[in-house]
Amino acid sequence: MAIEENQDISPRQAGLVAQTSILLHQVEGPINLGSTCRAMANTGFQKLAYSGRLSGLESAALRFAIHAQGILKQAQKQPDIDGLLDGLDVVFGFSPRDPWTDGRQLDLDGFHREYAKTLAEGKRIGLLFGNEMTGLANADLARCSWRVSLPTAKTYVSMNLAQAVLVVLWELHRAAAREISSGDA
Amino acid sequence: MAIEENQDISPRQAGLVAQTSILLHQVEGPINLGSTCRAMANTGFQKLAYSGRLSGLESAALRFAIHAQGILKQAQKQPDIDGLLDGLDVVFGFSPRDPWTDGRQLDLDGFHREYAKTLAEGKRIGLLFGNEMTGLANADLARCSWRVSLPTAKTYVSMNLAQAVLVVLWELHRAAAREISSGDA
Repeated sequence: MAIEENQDISPRQAGLVAQTSILLHQVEGPINLGSTCRAMANTGFQKLAYSGRLSGLESAALRFAIHAQGILKQAQKQPDIDGLLDGLDVVFGFSPRDPWTDGRQLDLDGFHREYAKTLAEGKRIGLLFGNEMTGLANADLARCSWRVSLPTAKTYVSMNLAQAVLVVLWELHRAAAREISSGDA
Repeated sequence: MAIEENQDISPRQAGLVAQTSILLHQVEGPINLGSTCRAMANTGFQKLAYSGRLSGLESAALRFAIHAQGILKQAQKQPDIDGLLDGLDVVFGFSPRDPWTDGRQLDLDGFHREYAKTLAEGKRIGLLFGNEMTGLANADLARCSWRVSLPTAKTYVSMNLAQAVLVVLWELHRAAAREISSGDA
């Protein structure tokens, strides 16, 4: 029960929160926007930016962001991908597609390794997710430092947007907790 | 990339699917019901049962179960918790509450241990989740072999129902994949 009982925030967890932005490019569904905020609150993340047609004031967004509406209200609305990526040092783009053989494609273990390294270097990190129907286009993926494909069941690789965000944040939250538990922090 | 490239289903993964039922007690939201089906498809699970007012034919349930509607259509609708638990050998109930000191409360690592043991024994396993607003009542938790609290951020422990289901199934799916990767299966 070491994870549960530790009341301190480790340097890694503090860095996780301060250095990491969740980026939703061209998000269309207010339920996905709100659910992303709740997933962020459940895993301890705070910085959100998004592009697309939503205002963040949709009733469904507010309802699904229940008790995480502070994250929604402080989220940065950006006009395009340039705005989303502005000021970030390293961007991980999530997609089940793998269009190029350029050594920048990571599996989940590789993502954990690169994320931990980037975090330790004090860099500002973006986790980029694409539109619900179209995902990240090749032009968006070309802007990413790294591309990550999540290890879903092979029979159904396309995840709901907010569920994909949750899985990634849960992985990072758990990795930070394991570090505390093992005494690394 | 061992996880991604392995095309076989290990005995553990086959057992995971055949022996494990996801149980939603008094689920109210059609979006949660549909999202649960999609989370199951993304992580390779198939057996779903639920109680409550939903029919499973709601348009939002079908929409959020996109490409996982087969799971929704084959789901068992049960009148009450007796129906949900019927025929199962071991039930894990998920709740952030911990009402009793009886040694049946597990953290996530404990859940992995007990689940793996129960799976290896060939038992039929239920993963029980409660209503969106009220969670699992004490009377429901008393029916569980084990109670599990998920290690969320301490500042916000209450997860959306479908997101809680996803986190649990993702943990099991990843544990099975790691076993294949390390050559245990």
